[in-house]
Amino acid sequence: MKLYMTENSGNAYKVRLLLGLLKVPYDKAVVDFPGKEHKKPAFLALNPRGQVPTLEDGGRVFWDSSACLVYVARKHGGEQWLPTEPADMAEVMQWVALAGNEIQYGLQYGRNIVRGARQGDLEPCLAMGRTALGALEHRLKEHDWLALGRPTIADLACYPYVALADEAKLPLADYPAIREWMKRLESLPNWTPRS
Amino acid sequence: MKLYMTENSGNAYKVRLLLGLLKVPYDKAVVDFPGKEHKKPAFLALNPRGQVPTLEDGGRVFWDSSACLVYVARKHGGEQWLPTEPADMAEVMQWVALAGNEIQYGLQYGRNIVRGARQGDLEPCLAMGRTALGALEHRLKEHDWLALGRPTIADLACYPYVALADEAKLPLADYPAIREWMKRLESLPNWTPRS
Repeated sequence: MKLYMTENSGNAYKVRLLLGLLKVPYDKAVVDFPGKEHKKPAFLALNPRGQVPTLEDGGRVFWDSSACLVYVARKHGGEQWLPTEPADMAEVMQWVALAGNEIQYGLQYGRNIVRGARQGDLEPCLAMGRTALGALEHRLKEHDWLALGRPTIADLACYPYVALADEAKLPLADYPAIREWMKRLESLPNWTPRS
Repeated sequence: MKLYMTENSGNAYKVRLLLGLLKVPYDKAVVDFPGKEHKKPAFLALNPRGQVPTLEDGGRVFWDSSACLVYVARKHGGEQWLPTEPADMAEVMQWVALAGNEIQYGLQYGRNIVRGARQGDLEPCLAMGRTALGALEHRLKEHDWLALGRPTIADLACYPYVALADEAKLPLADYPAIREWMKRLESLPNWTPRS
């Protein structure tokens, strides 16, 4: 299995977390972002969006962090990380969707605007980020994990950019249940620290 | 099964398409958007994002169109619309992710800006919309369907806002393979026309 990634990418980090937790060996293919490798034809042939993560295994290629998480969880995670029972699968996937929507376009974009890595208006990002953090806090006030009472890809998908929310001007001091959930995640055996 | 929806919501339309194709009976709960019902406590208790679609079945509640599609496909669609084989499932889910990302934040947001229903800068929406349409056109030039050589929830997730791309100032005249794919979809038995 080959994971196209950068060390900085929070979206690639989601997949690295799951691979680490499951102790699945993989090759890292670090994409030269400063050299715009991800926008060149060879990489675009793998992933037409020109993004990491992109995962290659057994002659198949998958792009988008959510599809990579689905693939690894279903192939190596049994029923633990993404079960096949319809209601349980949907409960997990709704939080994976939040990670790709309000968390990505609120917290990730907002952080990049604050850091000067992206141009744009911060205010709509903050609004989306607050929706995301509010939904997470509401859930985590009364549950240890986002779905099914156990760690799943729901938690891994949401973690990386939520953990950096302070840098998007949305201090986690305001979200105590999220902070406790992050500690629970970071205490899992075989947790990969952010590089 | 009860689907919280509005007649205008393209995201709810994705789920209505699948329910129709599978001939699954369901109750429509039309949410009073002008009356802001979706931002009131009773609805927020079902869906903390305050959005449609939201699906209620057997005492469980699912939000986000992608989770609703996953639920209906797994519960009623056998292996046709979302198979459980890891690589096949991931191939479908990467296009569902595109629908929730570049299609949603490019085409759907862009269309709302053009229509005056949302404030914001159109240019980044157009850029994301072009990424989405380019990825779809590239795939559909040589394939009839987005994944697995047959209709899946990948196609249903992408269709509603792609079909309205003209209204987001991204004319589909430039994307002939997408236009042919739309005709194939619209010819499926039990296709639900846009209301």
